[in-house]
Amino acid sequence: MNRIDGRRADQLRPVFLERHFQMHPAGSAIIEVGNTKVICAATVEDKVPPFLKGTGTGWITAEYSMLPGSTMPRSIRDRGGKINGRNTEIQRLIGRALRSVTDLTKIGERTITIDCDVLQADGGTRTASITGAFVALVEACNTIYEEGNIFPVTDFVAAISAGISPSGEKILDLNYSEDYETLADCNVVKTGAGEFVEIQITGEKKSFSRADLNDILDLAEKGIDELFDIQKDALKELVWRVGQIS
Amino acid sequence: MNRIDGRRADQLRPVFLERHFQMHPAGSAIIEVGNTKVICAATVEDKVPPFLKGTGTGWITAEYSMLPGSTMPRSIRDRGGKINGRNTEIQRLIGRALRSVTDLTKIGERTITIDCDVLQADGGTRTASITGAFVALVEACNTIYEEGNIFPVTDFVAAISAGISPSGEKILDLNYSEDYETLADCNVVKTGAGEFVEIQITGEKKSFSRADLNDILDLAEKGIDELFDIQKDALKELVWRVGQIS
Amino acid sequence: MNRIDGRRADQLRPVFLERHFQMHPAGSAIIEVGNTKVICAATVEDKVPPFLKGTGTGWITAEYSMLPGSTMPRSIRDRGGKINGRNTEIQRLIGRALRSVTDLTKIGERTITIDCDVLQADGGTRTASITGAFVALVEACNTIYEEGNIFPVTDFVAAISAGISPSGEKILDLNYSEDYETLADCNVVKTGAGEFVEIQITGEKKSFSRADLNDILDLAEKGIDELFDIQKDALKELVWRVGQIS
Amino acid sequence: MNRIDGRRADQLRPVFLERHFQMHPAGSAIIEVGNTKVICAATVEDKVPPFLKGTGTGWITAEYSMLPGSTMPRSIRDRGGKINGRNTEIQRLIGRALRSVTDLTKIGERTITIDCDVLQADGGTRTASITGAFVALVEACNTIYEEGNIFPVTDFVAAISAGISPSGEKILDLNYSEDYETLADCNVVKTGAGEFVEIQITGEKKSFSRADLNDILDLAEKGIDELFDIQKDALKELVWRVGQIS
Amino acid sequence: MNRIDGRRADQLRPVFLERHFQMHPAGSAIIEVGNTKVICAATVEDKVPPFLKGTGTGWITAEYSMLPGSTMPRSIRDRGGKINGRNTEIQRLIGRALRSVTDLTKIGERTITIDCDVLQADGGTRTASITGAFVALVEACNTIYEEGNIFPVTDFVAAISAGISPSGEKILDLNYSEDYETLADCNVVKTGAGEFVEIQITGEKKSFSRADLNDILDLAEKGIDELFDIQKDALKELVWRVGQIS
Amino acid sequence: MNRIDGRRADQLRPVFLERHFQMHPAGSAIIEVGNTKVICAATVEDKVPPFLKGTGTGWITAEYSMLPGSTMPRSIRDRGGKINGRNTEIQRLIGRALRSVTDLTKIGERTITIDCDVLQADGGTRTASITGAFVALVEACNTIYEEGNIFPVTDFVAAISAGISPSGEKILDLNYSEDYETLADCNVVKTGAGEFVEIQITGEKKSFSRADLNDILDLAEKGIDELFDIQKDALKELVWRVGQIS
Repeated sequence: MNRIDGRRADQLRPVFLERHFQMHPAGSAIIEVGNTKVICAATVEDKVPPFLKGTGTGWITAEYSMLPGSTMPRSIRDRGGKINGRNTEIQRLIGRALRSVTDLTKIGERTITIDCDVLQADGGTRTASITGAFVALVEACNTIYEEGNIFPVTDFVAAISAGISPSGEKILDLNYSEDYETLADCNVVKTGAGEFVEIQITGEKKSFSRADLNDILDLAEKGIDELFDIQKDALKELVWRVGQIS
Repeated sequence: MNRIDGRRADQLRPVFLERHFQMHPAGSAIIEVGNTKVICAATVEDKVPPFLKGTGTGWITAEYSMLPGSTMPRSIRDRGGKINGRNTEIQRLIGRALRSVTDLTKIGERTITIDCDVLQADGGTRTASITGAFVALVEACNTIYEEGNIFPVTDFVAAISAGISPSGEKILDLNYSEDYETLADCNVVKTGAGEFVEIQITGEKKSFSRADLNDILDLAEKGIDELFDIQKDALKELVWRVGQIS
Repeated sequence: MNRIDGRRADQLRPVFLERHFQMHPAGSAIIEVGNTKVICAATVEDKVPPFLKGTGTGWITAEYSMLPGSTMPRSIRDRGGKINGRNTEIQRLIGRALRSVTDLTKIGERTITIDCDVLQADGGTRTASITGAFVALVEACNTIYEEGNIFPVTDFVAAISAGISPSGEKILDLNYSEDYETLADCNVVKTGAGEFVEIQITGEKKSFSRADLNDILDLAEKGIDELFDIQKDALKELVWRVGQIS
Repeated sequence: MNRIDGRRADQLRPVFLERHFQMHPAGSAIIEVGNTKVICAATVEDKVPPFLKGTGTGWITAEYSMLPGSTMPRSIRDRGGKINGRNTEIQRLIGRALRSVTDLTKIGERTITIDCDVLQADGGTRTASITGAFVALVEACNTIYEEGNIFPVTDFVAAISAGISPSGEKILDLNYSEDYETLADCNVVKTGAGEFVEIQITGEKKSFSRADLNDILDLAEKGIDELFDIQKDALKELVWRVGQIS
Repeated sequence: MNRIDGRRADQLRPVFLERHFQMHPAGSAIIEVGNTKVICAATVEDKVPPFLKGTGTGWITAEYSMLPGSTMPRSIRDRGGKINGRNTEIQRLIGRALRSVTDLTKIGERTITIDCDVLQADGGTRTASITGAFVALVEACNTIYEEGNIFPVTDFVAAISAGISPSGEKILDLNYSEDYETLADCNVVKTGAGEFVEIQITGEKKSFSRADLNDILDLAEKGIDELFDIQKDALKELVWRVGQIS
Repeated sequence: MNRIDGRRADQLRPVFLERHFQMHPAGSAIIEVGNTKVICAATVEDKVPPFLKGTGTGWITAEYSMLPGSTMPRSIRDRGGKINGRNTEIQRLIGRALRSVTDLTKIGERTITIDCDVLQADGGTRTASITGAFVALVEACNTIYEEGNIFPVTDFVAAISAGISPSGEKILDLNYSEDYETLADCNVVKTGAGEFVEIQITGEKKSFSRADLNDILDLAEKGIDELFDIQKDALKELVWRVGQIS
């Protein structure tokens, strides 16, 4: 099979991931996966949702949005009360992924808001958001970390997509044109310890078997392992904070 | 292990499913899965979204909502521009599940709107919605079906949840209290042909392995096979319409 | 005159009214008046509107909504900031009716929210809502009642519609097709003590005289007296709570 | 009994009503009833709601709002999606009242929008709105009227409030402080032919008898008859248009 | 050059300005500039925005809106979440103008809300709003002023428009038809001390030179000086409060 | 005087301006002015607002927004019907500036939407938006330009801020900390031909004289002339399109 950009079936697009892209937030990162580009910002505020008040425990929430010029045709802004269901679904996924590797009791009664804003979309924006947001989260946690404590982020987490091409081949890291024609679309979130925190697989065009699922997960696991290395490079001197016990 | 309601790990709650619960919509059903009760209505309108105009093809969309009194504490209504992310996510899932077994070119330029309104919630409302909505969909398609044509609904589809209990056992069809404490929560949608159309599994409290996933899918497949029989009983004389070729 | 469903001019449709339809709210009821079906839930919360804080007095508020599949054509949901004037008007009416028979100082600083959700509409949904909500209210008040006190609900209250048919005859309890063509439409709310708490009569198609008004009120009074008996049957062991002095 | 402003029980406050208060709308009026002041504008547009397209028939709709400075404390504007139930209820009442004396087939496929904006509120703003809006409506209909036709406005219509004072006396045209403490509050809309188009009576503080109702209606009828004379004075040369057959 | 209403290039329209137009707000005024009519109300509330809590300092904010009947065609109301950018822009301008002549530390932790509601629009509504709102502000400040203190309003402020006619002449106080065809539109806000607080000049149809700007400012300064006299007449016994030191 | 970043009073911050930052929109640019960074996208759509239908003339509109992480504290998104007055005001300014140098009859019945999204804010975001959006606009117009025609963009346009420092000195291109404490804040938009299209100057903290205004305009003119050179460098081979007659 030939992929449109010449990649092998199990090959990631080139990934660029850099810390501290914005000067104001406690943590930030830019991630580029091929032509997909996402800014991830992590802001720390001294407040928590009502259900956590007085518990000493914090919260992580995420917002996801696409710049109007990030897509063709132009994306309409979320203004004036219009509900964008896809955005809502994605930001809930990002929040769950990051909370799964964070000990919320270790951030105190604070809320960390993760903003993922897509500058350019070419498939895989939700998984790129998770992978990049992890770096912003570590950077933000470092600003509130006090030596001698347990670091709030307990493990790595990253995400990638995989799917089934029209010819039936399983492929990793779908770009937009591949995603548009895929028979089944799968998003996988995995921790550094090698376990899953989320698998979402949809076969709207064609149903899929248990064997298909396993092939796809094999691909995704391989891709995520490569992303962990890229996250470690981006984190630089903060890398050993992740999972730091004291 | 003892489940709170005495069920075996692989046992569904009692299911009640009945056609034509409401007199106005083209199709409707009520489904009860234990204490969870959902009304499913299928309305047919002679219009399609802009991207389908002039194509001769129709669309299926879903709306999901909980009556305020269906939960404890009371659910606040979706009024005045407030966005309920969970509702949005669920209604997108219901729409995808039903479209996966419908040949949209066979319903003409019509939109079938599936309304799933939860009367009482005790876990599993989204999967009950899919299972019940399927029956309403068949009933609605029958009102626009002309003899000699291919019936738009090409196969059965049903859904169930499964998960991992705090003690590590895999259990089928979680009620609210089980869902609240589950380590991993999985929703599975499967067709009559035995393939999957959607798997969503989240391990927010604890990550899970490939082996865990396979155990959970085994349970879910068993449960969904039982639901197909219940759907067939509810459909009565319409049962043979599903997948009818001419 | 022949009514479309064969009723006499002064005859109610069959009424079914049952307590405790939902398991979560403090009080709940389902009422069916012919094909009209409404779920009424009464939720008790330990908070009051700002103007009652510190007064020791509580509040009763109501919300009214129609399930999308309850009508033909489908009712659009109150989402995304759209204002439905009719719903607003009806829920204010329900709130006033219930407050008129409740001693708000006897429920403490609590708010009882009455949710009336129409499952199926065939005329008279607002009066059915009041009649059913009364039962849910009594049930809810009973959960916060302490023996030896005065019961907050001081009297019965029920409601019915009446109107003028195109042929000029006065008729009781209009169904949808009668309501659609009525010359004057009247909703009456009356207490067990035999006095009115609300009369709303509109003659949009044709104005009406004082004599017409009196005929209509005669019919409505007869109908409401029958509804009181049905409420008493539904309340069962709680019936003597209403108006209980100590 | 002594009323706070020295009026007799059956006495209206001083009423000032003047045509053509604004230069842009097809019809407009200002009405002052004591300290209550309302601007009424009637705009004609060449469009109708969907259900009237192609029928040759027009529509009358109303909007009601209070200027922020019209009340104490300040009224918050209807902005940003907040729903004001009272405003919605009142504007529906105004629309029904005006439609009851208009032959909508005689205005062609046009919509007349009646805007009632309260400059100052001291009780009775909804009834003043109806009484003033009638004058604006006649003025607007005159701008689209062609000689030889039947005039769209077929009769006069006006409205007033009446109620029961804490001491039990029936009183006409309640100002704000009287309205605040009234036991029962009644709004009556009557045509020039002497019949009613709307009666709304609420006894939230205390229920009322059939005899109370009749006393209140007697008062209201007397007050409305006086308002007809004031409308005729304000209409000047347009007065004979109302009910003009050819 | 002949102006449509016969004015000289440097001539204001007739101005009518009167205090205490509404009975409820602490301060109010009506201003008429030719056919433009605006009601200005100033309400005092014992609260401040979050950033001022505990500082002892107050705030002035403004809201601007047009009655639907104030324009041709009818202005649509700001309801249901629709954003009117022009209104927002104008109310921010009004707020800045009034704050520039108010010592906010002298009003204590209070918010003065200025409501400018346009009854009739014929050009210059934003500048008329500022000129009229100043009078309402002084009246409102007087209700909270205690003898012996420094009066919060430290100087006069008024505003006027000027522009360039299609023939290139500079003209003062544009009415709607002049504003519609002006090449450049300028709004100027000036204090009693003779300095500017805001200049906004736009040349959407044609750009303008520094010399044009100076000519326009000359006209505006002359017009505003005349408005100061009109404000002083309207303020009557309150005139000496402005800038009162003790 | 010493500026916080060591600049001379009449010195711009370093400016970086590059074309084609995003791959999807017809035109796009990124502009950095010191730490302020804005993405400008220009999208072309084959539709016009209602008032232009059938005229053969097009429209330019702008939207302006700040990424949540662009500021400290975090900017809240414009979701769910909240109105951000500042954003609305700025996007109207951007639209006017670009329309002033565009012959809208030369773009046909198309709308060009300019999206200015602030990645990082450090003062001067609105003027940077105009300067950068101009480059995106030229790029977008080039995609619809046919040789031999008149190019729609007729002249250069750029913008800068200037103000008065607390010590009274006039300074060019204020960064955030300078803007925060400036006595008067001026935004100037000028064309390549040397005339102004917009001047907005506000003296909220202190009023200003005509002489102050002239000093500030001198600074702004110098700064904008430098920006024209930067725009020309960024436009590269498109530079001669601007003002091209055939």
